[in-house]
Amino acid sequence: MKITIAQLNFKIGDFEGNTSKIADVIFNAKRQGSDLVVFSEMSVCGYMPEDLLDYPYFIEKCEQSLEVVAQSCQGIAAIVGGVVRNPNKGRLLQNVACFMNNGRIEKIIPKTLLPTYDVFTEARYFEPARESSIIEFQGVKIGIAICEDLWDQYNDFEYTTSPAEQLKTLGADIIINPSASPFNLGKQSHRNRVFSGQVNRFKIPVLYVNQVGMHTELLFDGSSKAVNPNGDISIQLPEFEESVAQLEYHHGYFSVENSNLTIGTDNVALLHKALVFGIRDYFQKMGFKKAVLGASGGIDSALVQHLAVDALGAENVLAVLMPSRFSSEGSVSDAIELSKNLGNEHIILPIEDVHSAYEGSLKPIFEGTEVGLAEENLQARSRAVLLMAISNKKGNILLNTSNKSEMAVGYSTLYGDLCGSLSVIGDVYKTQVYALCEYLHSSQGKIPRNIIEKEPSAELRPDQKDSDSLPLYSILDGILRLYIEEKKGHNEIVMEGYDAAVVAKVIRMVNANEYKRYQAPPILRVSTKSFGKGRVMPLVATYEI
Amino acid sequence: MKITIAQLNFKIGDFEGNTSKIADVIFNAKRQGSDLVVFSEMSVCGYMPEDLLDYPYFIEKCEQSLEVVAQSCQGIAAIVGGVVRNPNKGRLLQNVACFMNNGRIEKIIPKTLLPTYDVFTEARYFEPARESSIIEFQGVKIGIAICEDLWDQYNDFEYTTSPAEQLKTLGADIIINPSASPFNLGKQSHRNRVFSGQVNRFKIPVLYVNQVGMHTELLFDGSSKAVNPNGDISIQLPEFEESVAQLEYHHGYFSVENSNLTIGTDNVALLHKALVFGIRDYFQKMGFKKAVLGASGGIDSALVQHLAVDALGAENVLAVLMPSRFSSEGSVSDAIELSKNLGNEHIILPIEDVHSAYEGSLKPIFEGTEVGLAEENLQARSRAVLLMAISNKKGNILLNTSNKSEMAVGYSTLYGDLCGSLSVIGDVYKTQVYALCEYLHSSQGKIPRNIIEKEPSAELRPDQKDSDSLPLYSILDGILRLYIEEKKGHNEIVMEGYDAAVVAKVIRMVNANEYKRYQAPPILRVSTKSFGKGRVMPLVATYEI
Repeated sequence: MKITIAQLNFKIGDFEGNTSKIADVIFNAKRQGSDLVVFSEMSVCGYMPEDLLDYPYFIEKCEQSLEVVAQSCQGIAAIVGGVVRNPNKGRLLQNVACFMNNGRIEKIIPKTLLPTYDVFTEARYFEPARESSIIEFQGVKIGIAICEDLWDQYNDFEYTTSPAEQLKTLGADIIINPSASPFNLGKQSHRNRVFSGQVNRFKIPVLYVNQVGMHTELLFDGSSKAVNPNGDISIQLPEFEESVAQLEYHHGYFSVENSNLTIGTDNVALLHKALVFGIRDYFQKMGFKKAVLGASGGIDSALVQHLAVDALGAENVLAVLMPSRFSSEGSVSDAIELSKNLGNEHIILPIEDVHSAYEGSLKPIFEGTEVGLAEENLQARSRAVLLMAISNKKGNILLNTSNKSEMAVGYSTLYGDLCGSLSVIGDVYKTQVYALCEYLHSSQGKIPRNIIEKEPSAELRPDQKDSDSLPLYSILDGILRLYIEEKKGHNEIVMEGYDAAVVAKVIRMVNANEYKRYQAPPILRVSTKSFGKGRVMPLVATYEI
Repeated sequence: MKITIAQLNFKIGDFEGNTSKIADVIFNAKRQGSDLVVFSEMSVCGYMPEDLLDYPYFIEKCEQSLEVVAQSCQGIAAIVGGVVRNPNKGRLLQNVACFMNNGRIEKIIPKTLLPTYDVFTEARYFEPARESSIIEFQGVKIGIAICEDLWDQYNDFEYTTSPAEQLKTLGADIIINPSASPFNLGKQSHRNRVFSGQVNRFKIPVLYVNQVGMHTELLFDGSSKAVNPNGDISIQLPEFEESVAQLEYHHGYFSVENSNLTIGTDNVALLHKALVFGIRDYFQKMGFKKAVLGASGGIDSALVQHLAVDALGAENVLAVLMPSRFSSEGSVSDAIELSKNLGNEHIILPIEDVHSAYEGSLKPIFEGTEVGLAEENLQARSRAVLLMAISNKKGNILLNTSNKSEMAVGYSTLYGDLCGSLSVIGDVYKTQVYALCEYLHSSQGKIPRNIIEKEPSAELRPDQKDSDSLPLYSILDGILRLYIEEKKGHNEIVMEGYDAAVVAKVIRMVNANEYKRYQAPPILRVSTKSFGKGRVMPLVATYEI
């Protein structure tokens, strides 16, 4: 049996676009002699439409699209993901894979395990399948397990049912796994554990088909693959690219004529690829073309500027330098050099006039008080207003340049440097920012050495340094990872060798700044625990530690 | 059997405070001869801690607190809500009610139906109970159904199991329903349908005990009540107040010595009560004292100012008037009159200097372009920066003054009038703003008539009026309700009698402004569908209508 796997980039709610993309692949696969085409989870509507699923007209369109696609399955079968109304009692919808053949939907397989943790909210919408079933096609018993259905033993908890086990009992020859599995660093090896674990357990080959694309916070990398009963990966599609491939299933094994097995990129290069893809796909899907950002001469904005140029082209990136009375000369010249190296336009817009106007207006209120946070924030907010004015006037989309370490401890000004339509590196720790810049410096040579080497500073008062108020970034990031990603408490983190007072201070800062993150832009998610929908914290609470 | 019901205000994560509050009530109830005290759902930790539940130390504290409370149950029993580790396979936690007696936890009853829709996310954390069970106490068979457990037939969908039916089968004499049931207008009658429905179905009296309190977006009103088998409500505790009451259970009926049955407040008065309570409890729990807001002389800021004074006292409210070159004289004098009537401090801070400084700085970029949105937003953002500077300097918390109609259609400036720590009326439509102001005008007489009667305007350009870009608010709000609360699509809304082009325009505006709401402050929820965690929409999507 010849199977085509289609790793495509869908747009949520774009039924017409998604459907015609699917139909094209079916048409070509048929010409190339395929018997079956497999698409990713919820392909006709895109994953995840969230509360658009609450709108009946949305579900009607989804069901209609599935019908339309089914009509093109003449002389070829397809497995297509979508959402349909639940015909029984319970939640109103089901997340399903439709087996299409002979011009119609021959079988609807609902998903059993509905991920509802971190960024997943499927129990919010769907009724789970109560039992698994098998499709017989060309003498092969096909079991369909939708995404999480294969992850029963591979989360922080173990599900009470195992769809793979049920499929084995039903005599499945192969398991097809249409997925919408988001990217994070380390996800590839996590997936390999899952698939090889299931293959070992049941000696059934697994075919995993994932989508690619940027969907608000989530990045989907694709990396679709076929795993044989001996554990070998017979094919793996590339990361962050649409890709369609044909493989052969014969006597319990997958094989590929021209194996284009992608070798995994290493972590820093993969992170770069993910972030560039995220920016590019965001702009493409939103119909945006040009970006703007504040270029401080610091390492964070340098990285975002570089990523934006890599994603959109230098001609579509505008860097705005907004020096204040506290900016060092080096900051301005470094920022200018970076823009020259990258080839993007830059403008210089000093904030002194605006800054003084605020000080003048606020004099009756500020008089006699000590200079502090209010004065510092004024500068960050003056810059944000200028950036938004340029954005509103020229249509360039403002990219946020805060990193995860800053976002975590609140070392950023709400309505100031926390502004933007998209936070590019809000899930990238400062130590990773350095690693990425070193990588870009050595591979492209456009980031001035000085930007990487100078001491980090917000430059909001004379001689200010990050290290005045924060521990060393290597220590800070270590503590943050344990607290945020690994959900360890104070005592456990101290057990790992960190100073108790520093740990307490860092945790307090993280907790005290939930209110800032509540109003932050969407963040490209690249870790196992990103700020945003995957980490929901109450604002009104006592945070004991 | 004498039962005390405790409608209390808990703080999330404040184990010490919550536990001592619970112990006090148990102590007093025992002195007053009660046999049993009933508390609301998840009382030791507060509802809802969200992802704090992912931290093992949080769960340990929760379990320890339950143990501590149990020790005080000597000569009196108690039903106390909390979270414990799930001893079996599945999700790691359970949402439980503990039956405490003889100084220990005698039985743990987990929740069966885990609400996961709108603002509820319980399937994110908890494994459901697989079966119900009964507690025998003083010859009475007590069935415990936690909150949603009684709502099996009263949502948009019907659950596949009915805990109440199971309890009936097990021979329950009464059903106790510890709850964390958030407020919205109309919730009271919804609850009455649920309780009288269950009582009618099974002829078992129901005792519903709810918490009060503001928890980030959610308001809990309490309104705890006992419903007898004949459908009569024998007691109902007040709305938005802590309250403890003793009642008698005898031969299948509840009775109360001094019935303090609260008569339902009418809608506008109840809305006022809810919003005032929300502000007050937010400030109390966060340890804040003073508020600041921008006072434009318009009806929205007038309402928020009035509510803030009602909640915090005039001495704790600062109104900042920030007239621009486009502000009418009336705006300033109306705003001054309002502050005088309410007795709060006001300051006048014209934005002209800041506004001109921005124009000067941006001249090279704006030159030769048409005056438009960028110029209008500059003013709104200049005001936000001034308000945040005052907030940072003086410690007053900035209250947001945008209403739901504006939030819906994006008639507001991101990082401008969308700023604030708390959105007070972000779930109140403009037509409700008018109704509230009329109510306050007639009951307290402090809102100048002129503020209610003048035509709404953002005053960001000469002679601007809301009606230039928006339909009449009565029409707008009608369409918004159908689209947002009732999730109707374009055609269905047109069927209700609205103009097709207007409906299309309004829906497009709502959809196009998801990105602004993504970065908006938390909103006090008073409707069945508020912007915020209860309405999660993708930003990157095609919104067909």
